[in-house]
This record gives sequence, C-alpha cells and structure tokens, in this order.
Amino acid sequence: MLEKVEELMVKHIESLKDSKSLELFGKVPSGKRLRAKLILKIASSSDEAIKLASIVELIHAASLLHDDVIDDALTRRGVASINSTFGNKTAIMLGDILYSKGFSELTSLPQDVAYSISSAVTQLSIGELLDVELSSTFNEDLDAYFDMIYKKTASLIEASAFSAALLAKKDAKRYGIYGKNLGLAFQIIDDILDITQSQEVLGKPALNDFKEGKTTLPYLYMYNDLNDKEKEQLRSYFKKELSEEESMWIKKKMAQTNAINRSIEYAKKLGFEALEMIKEENSPELEKIIKEMIVREF
Amino acid sequence: MLEKVEELMVKHIESLKDSKSLELFGKVPSGKRLRAKLILKIASSSDEAIKLASIVELIHAASLLHDDVIDDALTRRGVASINSTFGNKTAIMLGDILYSKGFSELTSLPQDVAYSISSAVTQLSIGELLDVELSSTFNEDLDAYFDMIYKKTASLIEASAFSAALLAKKDAKRYGIYGKNLGLAFQIIDDILDITQSQEVLGKPALNDFKEGKTTLPYLYMYNDLNDKEKEQLRSYFKKELSEEESMWIKKKMAQTNAINRSIEYAKKLGFEALEMIKEENSPELEKIIKEMIVREF
Repeated sequence: MLEKVEELMVKHIESLKDSKSLELFGKVPSGKRLRAKLILKIASSSDEAIKLASIVELIHAASLLHDDVIDDALTRRGVASINSTFGNKTAIMLGDILYSKGFSELTSLPQDVAYSISSAVTQLSIGELLDVELSSTFNEDLDAYFDMIYKKTASLIEASAFSAALLAKKDAKRYGIYGKNLGLAFQIIDDILDITQSQEVLGKPALNDFKEGKTTLPYLYMYNDLNDKEKEQLRSYFKKELSEEESMWIKKKMAQTNAINRSIEYAKKLGFEALEMIKEENSPELEKIIKEMIVREF
Repeated sequence: MLEKVEELMVKHIESLKDSKSLELFGKVPSGKRLRAKLILKIASSSDEAIKLASIVELIHAASLLHDDVIDDALTRRGVASINSTFGNKTAIMLGDILYSKGFSELTSLPQDVAYSISSAVTQLSIGELLDVELSSTFNEDLDAYFDMIYKKTASLIEASAFSAALLAKKDAKRYGIYGKNLGLAFQIIDDILDITQSQEVLGKPALNDFKEGKTTLPYLYMYNDLNDKEKEQLRSYFKKELSEEESMWIKKKMAQTNAINRSIEYAKKLGFEALEMIKEENSPELEKIIKEMIVREF
C-alpha cells in the first residue's frame, strides 16, 4: 500500500507540469514514511486514506526541507540535503511547493480532516520557531522543551492519527492521543540517539544537538542533578565545538545522573500510554509501531 | 471594510496563542492590500469576502517573507525586512506560520475557493523558483519572463478575483482574466519603476533587479534591439555592482531602443484587456484599480 502512496506523491508533483520541481522532488530522500504507515494502519487502504497519507508525507517532506535550512544541515538521512546541494533558496521554495500542493489536495478531503492537518502545520512551524528561540540561550525549562517537541514533532503525527480515524469512522480522540504520545516518544528517542549513537550510525556528528544549543531531555535531566560548579561547566560548553575530553565529560555526567535511562523510561511511559489508548481497538500493527520504537538498542 | 480585514488578520494570529508569532506579525509591514481591496470590490463586504480577503493577505505576507529571504532583501516597503532584523530562520518560519494559518482558515470557505487559492500558492512558489533559475544566467527569453511573472505575481491575484467572484456568484472566469491581466501589468510596472525611479522613492537601490540578475521586460526589449557588441557589453554587466557610467549607459540604451515606453505600452495593453473583461459589470471601482495603475508617472 505504501507503494501506492509513493506513486500518488509523484503524481501530485507531476500534475504541476514543472520539470524543475519534479527533478528536485526526486532528490528528496523518502525516509521511513512513519506518518503514511500510521494512516494506512488506522484507516486501512481506502482511496481517501492513501490520498491523506500522500498529502501528509508531502507536508512532512516540506517541513524537513525548511528544517534543514533552519539547522544548516548538510545531510538528511545520510545523504546530502537539498539545501546543501542546491542552496537555501531552492530548499525554501521546494518546501513551499510541497506544502501548498499538499494543502490544495487536502481541499478534496473532508473539511475536519483538512482543518486538522493544516492546523497541525501551524503548530509545527510555531514549534520550529520555539526550537530556534530555546536554543538561542541555554534552556533549562523542562516544560518549554515538552511544549516545543509537542508542536514541532508530535502535532502532525497526532493530526495524522486523528484524521485517519475520522476517515475510518473510528474514535478520533483516542487515536489522536495515541498519535500525540507516539510523536513525543519518537522525538525523545531521536534526542537520546543523538547522544548514544556513533557518528557512523547517525550520519551526522554525535552530540550535534547540544552543539546547536539544544538542551534535549537527557541534558535537562542531567543539568538538574549537577552541582553549581558542574552546571557552570556544562553551560561553558554551550554551542561550542566540543573536544574529545569535553564530550567524554558530558557522557560521564549523563551516566552518573542516569539521565539517558530516565529519558528512555519517560519515552517508554509515553509509549505505554499510547498503547493504553488503543488497547480495545485490537490492532496488533499499531501496537507494533510503538513496541518497535521503545524496545530497541539505545 | 479594509479595517475589518486587518482586524481579522490579527485575530487569526491571536488564535494561535503564541506571543512570539503575534509580536513578529506586528512587525510585518501592511502594504497596499491590493488583493484585499480587489476581493472586497468584487464580492462586496460579506463575512465570507472579508474572511477570504484576510486569508489572501496572510498568504501574500507569507510569500513576501520568503521572497525577502530568497532575494536577501534588507528592506521591504522602505522599512527593515523581517529577515534582516530577526534572521532568515525566523522569516522562513513566520512565513510558514502565516501560510498554514491561511490554509487552515481556507478550509471553512467553499471547496472551489480553497482549491483556487491554494493552487495559486503552488504556482507562486514555482514562479519564485523560476525567478531564481532565470536570474542564474542572463535570460533573454521573453516567454520565460512572462511565464515566470504570471506564476510569481499574477496567479494569486487571478485566484483572488476568481474566488471573490465565486463567492459573489458572478462570472468567475471573466474576473479571473481581469485579475490575471491586472497582476501581469502590476509586475511589469514594478519592473519598470525599478529602472525609472530614484533610490529615495523605491526605498532600495535603482537598477536593483538587473544587479540581481533579473532581465525584466525593459531589458529584454532593449537587448533584442542592441547590436552584437552592445549585447556583449550588457552581458558583461550581469550581476555586477554598476558604476555610475555603466548605469548611465544602460539608461541611454533604454532610451534609444524605446524599451521603457514599449514596456509601459504593453502594461497598458494588459490593463485595457482587463477593463474589457469587466466592461459589462458596470464596476467603476474595479475600473479605477486598473486606471490608477497604468495612468501614472513612470
């Protein structure tokens, strides 16, 4: 079914009759299609569900194009990013093309679905802005972090699950909460992997988030347990190119404060809450999405 | 009525409950609200028309935010641009917030209106991409120029007039053509003023387009009438900081080839075609929009 989604995405872009857009779109890496899989698993493979999945993936791709410009990212999923190969201007405009095409296709779906998805994009963009703002100084506010990752990552996954349930005439509210928790857990795990995985596995430098000024959940947990002198030391590394020794110090303090494990536990807790939401739906596939995410090597 | 549009735009952003977005939105210059005026004049002041006008102006503001990032513009309408004051990242994200909020509000308008406006945004974004592409080398293709300004500028004005007529149950096709011609003439006149107006009036350096690699209509008309040696000379100025002498040479050749006057004539022709489209509608206000645009000092 995912193949049909991929085909439809290409068809959407072909319908624009602009060879440059089509060529550039061909160079956008596909990714895991988490949102499409989620939609198809909730709403099965009706034409409307496939259409919704294709739209959400266009919108998600657009958000990543802009995200990579915001982060000056050189790579995306291990290959050169569009902004690094074709420049920021092209990445911004290709993002706008994918966003607006997604929105114009949305107009053929039910109004509540179109509203849910487009509102989530506003939240996602506000989340990006918050992310930039939070990383401009050393953020130590846990609530601000959760608010930001909800908007930046979870809102579109929440809207995807909610909208798929609307199409399938299932309990949209429960599926929305499932999607929200899935999205939050997904982002937290992504933030953990930035610390625990090697550069080779990540396709980007390790501890990259912190270098960009992002104090993700493990840093926040750790920071709160440091003494004043150690807090000062961590703050002195803010947005710096870290030496091997400095990186090691951070990892040592992560271990001493148990910050990684506590972050994993929190992500698992969110995952279990997601499972709880759909336990009466008897959907092993949706359960599998959560389990595969939280039962893994960190 | 325009006041109600302004109020509603602010309400849209307030509804996001994000103080940063609201603060930034307050710093976006308002502009002439051409699109809102056009919509209100076609569809009068129904609630739906005011809503459509507020949405189109949000979308237009979003496109200018991204346009200024693309052009590295330091100013917009004589004041500092958002990208120059707050950085490209903020300008990109604020643009995404305004775009997506515009789209989510569109979902409460009739489906054909929502489709028309959102499709125009795709055309607009493709137009921006074409603009970047055309200015990467010295473009001498008149058709490519017209295709680009149609997409970049005229498509949203066309969709605004078309959609307003749909709401008012008027002949949408005729109003669409009126809007398209208005948009094309508007862009051509803007391109002429970049050459004929002083830096003080423009709020940006004169001959700025050419310096950015944009061979607008007057340059295209002029270029075609130059001999080979002169063509070579003009090409040698491509994307260069021009000396006073070089600027003078361009203006002299513009005069000799009558390129400015021919461009004005072409814009007027488009304006008259627009008037022709609505002559049986008996709308002095819509006629005034066109007349004020083409009967002016250049």
